[in-house]
Amino acid sequence: LSSQFESLDYEPWESRVFKEESSKKTPSSLTKQGITRWVVVFFIGVCTALIACTIDICVVEITKLKYGFLKKYIDKCVTENCLYMPYLLWLGISCGFAFIASVLVTYGEPVAAGSGIPLVKCYLNGINVHRLHRLKTLFVKAAGVTCSVLGGLAVGKEGPMVHSGAAVAAGLSQGKSTSLGFDFGILKEFRCDQEKRDFVTGGAAAGVAAAFGAPIGGVLFSLEEGSSFWNQNMTWRIFFCSMVSAFTLNVVLSAYHGQIGQLAYDGLLNFGKFPDIPFTLLELPIFIGMGIIGGLIGALFNQMNYHISVFRRRFIVSRWAKVLEVIVVCCVTVTAGFVMIYCVNDCKPLGPKDDIDFPIQMFCEDGQFNAVAAMWFQTPEASVRALFHDQPGTHNPLSVGLFFITYVFLACWTYGLSISSGIFIPALLSGAAWGRLVGLGLYRLTEGAAWADPGKYALIGAASQLGGIARVTLSLAVILIETTGNLSLGLGLMLTLLTAKLVGDCFNAGIYDMNVQLAGLPMLPWSSPPLCYGTQARDIMSKPVVVLREVERVSTVLSVLEETRHQGFPLIFENRFSGSQGNQNSFGMLRGLILRSQLKILLKEKAFCSSPTGSASQPPVSLETFRMYYPRYPTFQGMHFTEEERSSYLDLRPYLNPTPYTVPMHASLPRTFQLFRALGLRHLIVTDDNNEVVGMITRKTLARYR
Amino acid sequence: LSSQFESLDYEPWESRVFKEESSKKTPSSLTKQGITRWVVVFFIGVCTALIACTIDICVVEITKLKYGFLKKYIDKCVTENCLYMPYLLWLGISCGFAFIASVLVTYGEPVAAGSGIPLVKCYLNGINVHRLHRLKTLFVKAAGVTCSVLGGLAVGKEGPMVHSGAAVAAGLSQGKSTSLGFDFGILKEFRCDQEKRDFVTGGAAAGVAAAFGAPIGGVLFSLEEGSSFWNQNMTWRIFFCSMVSAFTLNVVLSAYHGQIGQLAYDGLLNFGKFPDIPFTLLELPIFIGMGIIGGLIGALFNQMNYHISVFRRRFIVSRWAKVLEVIVVCCVTVTAGFVMIYCVNDCKPLGPKDDIDFPIQMFCEDGQFNAVAAMWFQTPEASVRALFHDQPGTHNPLSVGLFFITYVFLACWTYGLSISSGIFIPALLSGAAWGRLVGLGLYRLTEGAAWADPGKYALIGAASQLGGIARVTLSLAVILIETTGNLSLGLGLMLTLLTAKLVGDCFNAGIYDMNVQLAGLPMLPWSSPPLCYGTQARDIMSKPVVVLREVERVSTVLSVLEETRHQGFPLIFENRFSGSQGNQNSFGMLRGLILRSQLKILLKEKAFCSSPTGSASQPPVSLETFRMYYPRYPTFQGMHFTEEERSSYLDLRPYLNPTPYTVPMHASLPRTFQLFRALGLRHLIVTDDNNEVVGMITRKTLARYR
Ligand SMILES: Nc1ncnc2c1ncn2[C@@H]1O[C@H](COP(=O)(O)OP(=O)(O)OP(=O)(O)O)[C@@H](O)[C@H]1O
Ligand SMILES: Nc1ncnc2c1ncn2[C@@H]1O[C@H](COP(=O)(O)OP(=O)(O)OP(=O)(O)O)[C@@H](O)[C@H]1O
Ligand SMILES: [Mg+2]
Ligand SMILES: [Mg+2]
Repeated sequence: LSSQFESLDYEPWESRVFKEESSKKTPSSLTKQGITRWVVVFFIGVCTALIACTIDICVVEITKLKYGFLKKYIDKCVTENCLYMPYLLWLGISCGFAFIASVLVTYGEPVAAGSGIPLVKCYLNGINVHRLHRLKTLFVKAAGVTCSVLGGLAVGKEGPMVHSGAAVAAGLSQGKSTSLGFDFGILKEFRCDQEKRDFVTGGAAAGVAAAFGAPIGGVLFSLEEGSSFWNQNMTWRIFFCSMVSAFTLNVVLSAYHGQIGQLAYDGLLNFGKFPDIPFTLLELPIFIGMGIIGGLIGALFNQMNYHISVFRRRFIVSRWAKVLEVIVVCCVTVTAGFVMIYCVNDCKPLGPKDDIDFPIQMFCEDGQFNAVAAMWFQTPEASVRALFHDQPGTHNPLSVGLFFITYVFLACWTYGLSISSGIFIPALLSGAAWGRLVGLGLYRLTEGAAWADPGKYALIGAASQLGGIARVTLSLAVILIETTGNLSLGLGLMLTLLTAKLVGDCFNAGIYDMNVQLAGLPMLPWSSPPLCYGTQARDIMSKPVVVLREVERVSTVLSVLEETRHQGFPLIFENRFSGSQGNQNSFGMLRGLILRSQLKILLKEKAFCSSPTGSASQPPVSLETFRMYYPRYPTFQGMHFTEEERSSYLDLRPYLNPTPYTVPMHASLPRTFQLFRALGLRHLIVTDDNNEVVGMITRKTLARYR
Repeated sequence: LSSQFESLDYEPWESRVFKEESSKKTPSSLTKQGITRWVVVFFIGVCTALIACTIDICVVEITKLKYGFLKKYIDKCVTENCLYMPYLLWLGISCGFAFIASVLVTYGEPVAAGSGIPLVKCYLNGINVHRLHRLKTLFVKAAGVTCSVLGGLAVGKEGPMVHSGAAVAAGLSQGKSTSLGFDFGILKEFRCDQEKRDFVTGGAAAGVAAAFGAPIGGVLFSLEEGSSFWNQNMTWRIFFCSMVSAFTLNVVLSAYHGQIGQLAYDGLLNFGKFPDIPFTLLELPIFIGMGIIGGLIGALFNQMNYHISVFRRRFIVSRWAKVLEVIVVCCVTVTAGFVMIYCVNDCKPLGPKDDIDFPIQMFCEDGQFNAVAAMWFQTPEASVRALFHDQPGTHNPLSVGLFFITYVFLACWTYGLSISSGIFIPALLSGAAWGRLVGLGLYRLTEGAAWADPGKYALIGAASQLGGIARVTLSLAVILIETTGNLSLGLGLMLTLLTAKLVGDCFNAGIYDMNVQLAGLPMLPWSSPPLCYGTQARDIMSKPVVVLREVERVSTVLSVLEETRHQGFPLIFENRFSGSQGNQNSFGMLRGLILRSQLKILLKEKAFCSSPTGSASQPPVSLETFRMYYPRYPTFQGMHFTEEERSSYLDLRPYLNPTPYTVPMHASLPRTFQLFRALGLRHLIVTDDNNEVVGMITRKTLARYR
């Protein structure tokens, strides 16, 4: 577990200043706050969708330019025998984009690397991932993923959308931007970790809704994968957020496709609309079988990716090496594509029904096109669509098989590179490839029975592969149902997904959880490990505990802050070693808890008093001031204290949390874990029978037990 | 709040005997338990679906017989002028069924009355509703709802399916039936409230899945409405359960309709399949407007129903009066139907496309049929289907309007009668009626524009009305999407539902919550009331606290059990009034907690020892024995104690929970509430600064604050 990550404060901090402030609140101010929440959520939905649209339109337009340009050269060079030319051009263009994508992330904002879903998950779990929601991160993520996709890498733009949505939510809900240095002075009541988290959950849902046009899928994704804390009142806001997002996307994309004012734009179903395909009871074993295959391939994929990541962490550390690796992967990808197009001569007649932007003729006869080239000469998303919807005869089993092997290998290598990239589309694409193979086999076996539709099996394969890799079930089923507009296959999809998940779980964790573990993020699982009732709180707690008194000398506070790195300090009543009741292990009677950040603000504000009994005359530092510093607390640099100040006192009583959560030292690990996890705590103080402090339990103490 | 309801014990009880037992568990026994869970869940899904199929098929077949029979008479009597005959026959048949439905519930099992959803909600919230899951309840519910529907009342069979699913789950997961008096001796590890609750959540989802053929809707319903505690691991099992249920239903109903082995049986979409209907941005205001109307009508409906329920509680108390009321409502319903058919002469030509089982000609010309009669001569479900799918010209606006007013009034009167009945279908039907009116208006205004499809607006109206009454949004949207097979309307549906909910919430609570409040069920809301940081735990706690010592005299235990009705007793170390530290309000140093049920079992088992220091030699009563008594604990009747036994001691140390949850007496109400609610506690002990017991907080203490 890495010590660089700190936790978020999800508990309401019931100090005296807080209670005084909240006693002044009126029901009408609460109503106002409630309405403001809905308004903020509305804008989160809209902005997330607009970002998604921008990315989408950029990708579509530039891809068209890119492959249109290349097609011209290929068509010319096939006859003139200069095929190295389009190859080099292809390489150049792709590497150019890949280079930008990689430099942006590596030198700009490393936290924007990867899909972002694991980090958002951790944030919602309560870990403060630095710079996760900065404006710069958002920009790098959005621009980076556009370039990665344009670079022709085996990546999708869907995962990053979740991160973008989360960043938008975190930004908008604060009413200020520290990066840009302005503060609208609004939404001040939302400037705390807890409120922010709720908005981020909505933003993540909006991200999925915008990425796939799947509002219900978005809510479920947020629920299944993201959120660690859930509550019914939140559901409706999240739902609203992802609905607004899907609406906006629909309106904008409809307008972009020339149907202004229309809403039923089919492009929202970005994997194409599936007609109703019947399925029979006899197919259930096939679905289960495909689920098992998907689970196995997924587990293998995750394992391979794990080893690659470990290798990367050890040997590819410097920045330029990371950029170089991206370039290498990009070259390999382009080369693989080119070699396949060159070698596999899978010619198909070009019918009027074929929906291919750039049919490449290559060595095919006139009126025919190279089906392999069609797979490479478009965005991965379009390839998924092709595998789902092309006529049974379009693809040669051999070339699909070859494509699958190449692509799954590339995807595995690509995921984890220093670019922003999602795993959804690559997984769906490779799954669709083998799924289609299965479908083609069945089609031939049954001599073209109506139910043996290769497109249907491509869909099942895609679901199964993604289920095996990401281990998402419910939300994925809904997302696939929503994006394909097909409900009748719902049951089949669910069965496959559940099987894939269960099979995969026998071998290893899902890819997101693997990322979390690799990064050493102290994420708390849903429940404590089984069979650990024998372990007690006192066995795992940290001690000795660094404690402070309710009214403490400034010099003591300063030295404690400088000497330790703890984030919270229990406050005691008696002097440290007066040892009431003679318990040698105790550090004093518990009176409250104070956070490091609060101490820093108090020091910065110089809220000192001269007498050790505290001073009642001086008005306490207001909550307003505390919120002003959020979320970037002052550092010691630039803080100077005179000798007189050092020998004066800090009266912590108005600011301390007088009733921090405690756990008796004999409590079992499951009970301790449950308390910590269900309430989203940050500090849990271990007490003995007399309510005296004997130890401290924090996130990292518990995250070790999984 | 009624004191007749006790709570469930959701906390794991970490006593010494429990820890010893769990230390013997091996990972393989855990795996076995995990697999068993999935198997049990599978059977829950299957059985729930089979019950749903049985109800469905019975209703369909007998309805056919009933209306076929009546139609013959009507056709004859219209010419022979003896229309009182079919009227009396109709009255007789309907009242017969209504009588059976009512007697079953009133005399058989009163807990089976109503929709059952509020009770299941309360159960999942942690309230032990007596007899809720008995076999008899299940039977009465299933048979009762069949008869209610057959009686032609304004009821649906969907709500009761949720209850049936829950009852199936609670029964199957225990591996025994106390009613039938057999015990398979299996699944003993699931005999505790916590495990049972998890299965019941799955069963409720399976119920929705079977009622509507909507597996995802089922999971969401369980999440949104039912479950108060949620955890990711559970999601997948619930998902599996509702999937299995939908599968089974599909297979059985397909077979019933003669398509053995098929799975894409459209009948699963029991509101008929909607084709893709486009909608434009301009319709959004219409949807929002309809949402507002639905919210208003819903609020009015709830308010009226509330007053009717209050009236009923005061004046209709004896059993025969309840049965009589049902008969009266049934007569009014039939009469209303008959009068409408007689008076409104809404004749339509009978086309080949019309899907009407029993077209009644009445006073219409040959080749025509009475459109009003068609609405009454079928199950409410079929009427909903008709309003969704009939051609624009089928219904006369005036007769639809009349139907709406009559039906909404009947539904309001019917809901809450002493029969088992759901509100889903009546709400959808009345909503579909006014929705269709709106649609017809738009159709005329726009002179038949493609988007102004009356069926589409009927759907939106139905959703809005149900949203306004039940205040369910997310899951309802999914259910409607799943049952109509239409995704493109999804966004419109969601918008309408959310509006209806928000508007309705301005006036009163949803109908289920109203039922809960009326019945005095101590359900805990999701969060504590706002603005109550000033209230402290010590202000709300009960005191004096009845405490026991760790090793206590049998006679003391007996007198405490007889004199008080508390369900849990804190155990203290010192003698009651030795008053350590001189705190006058304290009842002693906390050592643990014991439940009334455990004390009763220990007394019954006569686990006594002679010395006040306890006896180590005697093996403690095993957990096995505790489970044997679950869930019906011994009563004092038949327990006799000799004088010697009375003066011996009960050593509670192996059975007590050594680390019960406590809260400091200065903690605020929100913090106390949060702790209690998030962890699903039953007892929360209030302690002072020295960890001495000063008060007690339980569900009913907190349920008062809402
Ligand atoms: N006041 C304290 N006295 C002694 N040990 C402490 C104290 N506070 C925390 N610890 C222990 O020191 C370690 C690091 O402290 P820290 O406060 O950074 O916790 P953490 O687990 O990193 O959680 P956070 O994310 O809140 O920083 C933890 O193992 C914790 O148990
Ligand atoms: N040991 C006790 N000593 C004193 N008062 C108690 C004790 N246990 C409970 N009470 C109080 O007595 C009342 C009824 O007790 P009871 O145990 O029946 O609780 P309840 O709220 O009905 O919850 P439950 O559903 O568990 O029965 C509650 O107000 C509770 O606060
Ligand atoms: Mg730390
Ligand atoms: Mg009670």
